Formats: sequence, C-alpha cells, structure tokens
Amino acid sequence: MTRHLGLDLGGTAIKTAVLEVAGEQTSIVGTGSAPTNADGGPLVVIERLIETGKAAIAEHGPVETVGLGVPGLFDRDRGTIELFPNLPGPWKGQQIRQPLEDALEVPVTLINDARAFSLAEATLGAGRGCETVVCLTLGTGVGGGVVIEGKVRLGAWGKAGEIGHQIVQPDGPRCGCGNRGCVEALTKAEVLTSLAGKDTVEEVYRSAAAGDARSREAIETVADWLAIGLANTIATLGPDRIVIGGGIVAAGEAVLEPIRRHLRERVTLVPPDEIQVVAAQLGPKAGAVGAALAPLAAQAVRAR
Amino acid sequence: MTRHLGLDLGGTAIKTAVLEVAGEQTSIVGTGSAPTNADGGPLVVIERLIETGKAAIAEHGPVETVGLGVPGLFDRDRGTIELFPNLPGPWKGQQIRQPLEDALEVPVTLINDARAFSLAEATLGAGRGCETVVCLTLGTGVGGGVVIEGKVRLGAWGKAGEIGHQIVQPDGPRCGCGNRGCVEALTKAEVLTSLAGKDTVEEVYRSAAAGDARSREAIETVADWLAIGLANTIATLGPDRIVIGGGIVAAGEAVLEPIRRHLRERVTLVPPDEIQVVAAQLGPKAGAVGAALAPLAAQAVRAR
Repeated sequence: MTRHLGLDLGGTAIKTAVLEVAGEQTSIVGTGSAPTNADGGPLVVIERLIETGKAAIAEHGPVETVGLGVPGLFDRDRGTIELFPNLPGPWKGQQIRQPLEDALEVPVTLINDARAFSLAEATLGAGRGCETVVCLTLGTGVGGGVVIEGKVRLGAWGKAGEIGHQIVQPDGPRCGCGNRGCVEALTKAEVLTSLAGKDTVEEVYRSAAAGDARSREAIETVADWLAIGLANTIATLGPDRIVIGGGIVAAGEAVLEPIRRHLRERVTLVPPDEIQVVAAQLGPKAGAVGAALAPLAAQAVRAR
Repeated sequence: MTRHLGLDLGGTAIKTAVLEVAGEQTSIVGTGSAPTNADGGPLVVIERLIETGKAAIAEHGPVETVGLGVPGLFDRDRGTIELFPNLPGPWKGQQIRQPLEDALEVPVTLINDARAFSLAEATLGAGRGCETVVCLTLGTGVGGGVVIEGKVRLGAWGKAGEIGHQIVQPDGPRCGCGNRGCVEALTKAEVLTSLAGKDTVEEVYRSAAAGDARSREAIETVADWLAIGLANTIATLGPDRIVIGGGIVAAGEAVLEPIRRHLRERVTLVPPDEIQVVAAQLGPKAGAVGAALAPLAAQAVRAR
C-alpha cells in the first residue's frame, strides 16, 4: 500500500487529494483546500503550496510521490513555469518543482491542470473503464486532455491534449496562443458572455432557460464550435467517451445537450447515436486527484 | 519464429509482404505484387486475393496470421465492406473476411490501408523508435493514421486515424464523407490539379519547379490546409514525428518543404523548429507490411 499526494494550484485555492494505491486498487482517502494568495506573487504561492502539502502529509501520513497540477504551461525538463495566463506574475522561468521537492523531500511531477482533470476523470470518474477518453474543460479558457489505456498522452513536448487549440476557422478571431480561429478563441467564457450580452456564463444559461433568444443563440454558436473541435478528435482518435468538465457543467444538460446535438450533426464516419458526451463526475477535486495520479500514470493506474 | 502474411488490396494491384517475427525482431522476408482485376467486381477480386495469398504462402511457407489492408471502410465485427470509394462495386455489405479465412485456413484481420501504411512506417519505417507518430497519405484522397507506442489507434469504431476528415473550414467545400471543409476536401489530388489547372499532381509539381506561378500558388494553398490539419494533431497528440506517404512523396522536398514551412508557421504551443515532418521510407510495400503487422499490433511489435 502506497500513498500519493496531489496538489492542484488554482487562482483562488490550492486543492489537495491523497490517494491510496493497493495493488490494482486506487482510492481517494482525503481531500482538502487552502487559499492560494495568488496576489502575493510566485514566492508567496510556492510557500503556500509547501505549507498545504506539508499539512496534508501531516494529516494523512507520509507519501511516496507528489503531483502538482498547474494552470498553464511549464518546462517538463527544467521544472519551471512558461506561462500562467491567469495568475499574477512574473511566473515565466520561475522554478516551481525544485523548492517543493526540497521542502517535501519526495519527487514532484508537474502536470497541466486540464491534463490532471482528464487523467482523474478517465481513471476514477466519468471515463472509467473506457479505452480512449477525450476530456474538455470549460472555464476562462478551454482545456483538454487525451487518455488512452489509462495513460494521459503528453506527446513529444509534454503539451499534448490541447484540443482547445485546434484551428477550426483559420481566418477567425485571434487566440491567446497567437493563432487565429482556435476552438478556445471561438468558445471561451468571454466569447459566450459577449455574444449573449451577459456578465457571466451562469447568467447566459439562466437567461437562455428563461427564453432569452440572444442567449440561446450564443449557446448554440459556441456549442457548434466545440462540436467541430470534438468531431475532429473523433476522426483522429475515436474516443469511447467524451467528458466535459469545468464549473459550468453544474448546469448539466443545458450545457451538454447542445454540444452533443451539434456533435452528432457534425460527425460523418461513425454512428452519431453511439457518441457519448457526459459530464465530469469527480467535481472540484478532479484536478488534485489527477495530480496525485500523474506520477503513477506510467503504470496506467486502474480504477478500484 | 513465426511468419505473418500481409495483403494490400489496391485498385490496380494486390501487394503482399511476409514478415518473420523472432522474439523482439521483426523482418520482411518477402514482398510481391499481382493484378487486382478490380473491374471484375467483388467476387473476382476476392478470388484474386485468395490466389495471391496462397501463392505467397506456397513461396514462403505457412503463416500464423493474415492481415488484409483495404482501401476504405469496413465493419470490424462482421468482416464486411462499408465503403470502397475507388473500386467498382457493389461492395457495400460484401463479406470479405470469411471467404479468405475459409480458403487460407488462418485468422484474417482487416485494416484500413492508410492505417496499415501508418503502422508499417511507425514500426519499421520513417517513424521507427518514436513514441507517437502521425501519418498522412496523399493520394486520390487524404488518409491517415495515429500510432502510439507501437499500436495503431483504431478507437471505439475501428476508424480512428482519419486526420484527413478533420473539419478546418466549416463553410468550405463538400467532402465525400458528407461534411464541409474537411482537410481532404481542401487538399485532395483533384483539388490541387484543379487549382493549378493541370491534369495530374505530378504535372503540378513539375510546372511549379519550372516556375509556373499558378502551380506554385496551388501547392502553397494545399500545403497550408494540410498544415492546419497537422497542427491540430500536434495540439492534440504532440507527435514525435509526422510521416508523409503516397506516390507523390517521390517528389521529395518539393512536397514536404511547403507542408513543413506552413506547419511551423501554424503551430504556437511547441517549438516550431523541433517539429519533424519526414517522407515515408518503406515505399509501395508499406501497406502490405502494415497489413501483416495488424494482427500482431496488440502486442506492439518493435523494430528489428
């Protein structure tokens, strides 16, 4: 029996999860949350990660590995941050792995937060038991992940799974990544709210439910672009299941149904009715659970 | 030591390859070719497959498995053909696996020809040694395949790897698959020749080399759409190497350079200079070699 800690660094909270692995069985034995203090800048945040990690270890006992989920891109070899689009910086070039390893005295594996989410949902959540799972997270941006036979695919540069950065309208709006017409540039929260003329994504769904035509149309437009991105992953990978996450999936079928409907219209090579688009199951702890799984994923952890 | 036969059904020829597998070593011990007689229709073609298979077995000795590469889509469970876009029919619903198994008295595995090509190149050809390989075949249409850790990914419906059917221009031209703006609909041979005002793809490259502006522009346009499709697979899978095949890659850098250049311009999340786009290495036998590998691929055959 071994224990493994996952830390999920978010803009407002650091979430934690401790997993217990016994043979083929993996179970979640504890979860928690602590403030990030992101406004304090990188050094304060790293100190918060260390304190939160130490507290979890003090509570649940020693761990063999630590996984750290981060909201952006990092250099896998160096253990440094390349881009945190939504955290006050300066983060570029900041060493994050070494100080954690020094303080916690265990190896630390970095993983992108959307990939951590994907690994968790594919292994212990809504994609459990499936060979190929494609995940999409709807938040400020559009994250993603591909999990095949229990392993999250990271690719040659450690950055695979960015299905939100597929180009689907080459002359489309500029994306934060520098390209034009990425799925993210056409579907992110800001685009949906601006199309609908509302302040928040939640408001868009609320007013659509109340019959507001502009909100309904905005949801349809965004769902169709997401469907095109997902249709492309179906052509490429034929996932057994597509898992949608992010706070807004709390709205359930109001979010999923339009995506599923447009996807079934967009797909030609496979039977539309067999396409599975489901909501994430693990809730806000998915990122921390996936971070804890990251160091183990080379052995393709199976669900308990 | 075991032997394995691959049959590659093409419009004009049936190609054969016999592989020898000894422990971790896989080698190609014989290849051949015989006319398809496609105009005779399905029953004649199936008889030709049986005769060609028997001849290869007579020459190289008994085999444990047969793989059959087919130029289209099939029903994996039933062993029947769904769509052969380029062979005189009627093929829809035609049983193809059973008559071969009955006549050759060994299990027969069906595989799409582009996936067979991909498996061969990733295992024994230009993608050898790479963890993740994305392959593209440029012919009448645009085929593809994804090979990860030695296994060609077939997905939930046995049809994954169709990277030519990614949608990259949703209001674009109608594709044979029924969608609009697939990579294939924007880049297939017929599109290139029509943009350039030439009769064959070879002529387009020849006149471009001779300075013809319209041919050059046509090549640039098509290369950029292919690059967008490949950029999307880089976002999703981060392949270590991209392998381009099809008869036209005989033209070498004239085909590869524009694709590579546009791809490097289109990619934002990974270092453009590290992207590898290379020509296939196994030549016309790749399909038959990949078909022979198909029944073995569950064990992820390694290169000798």
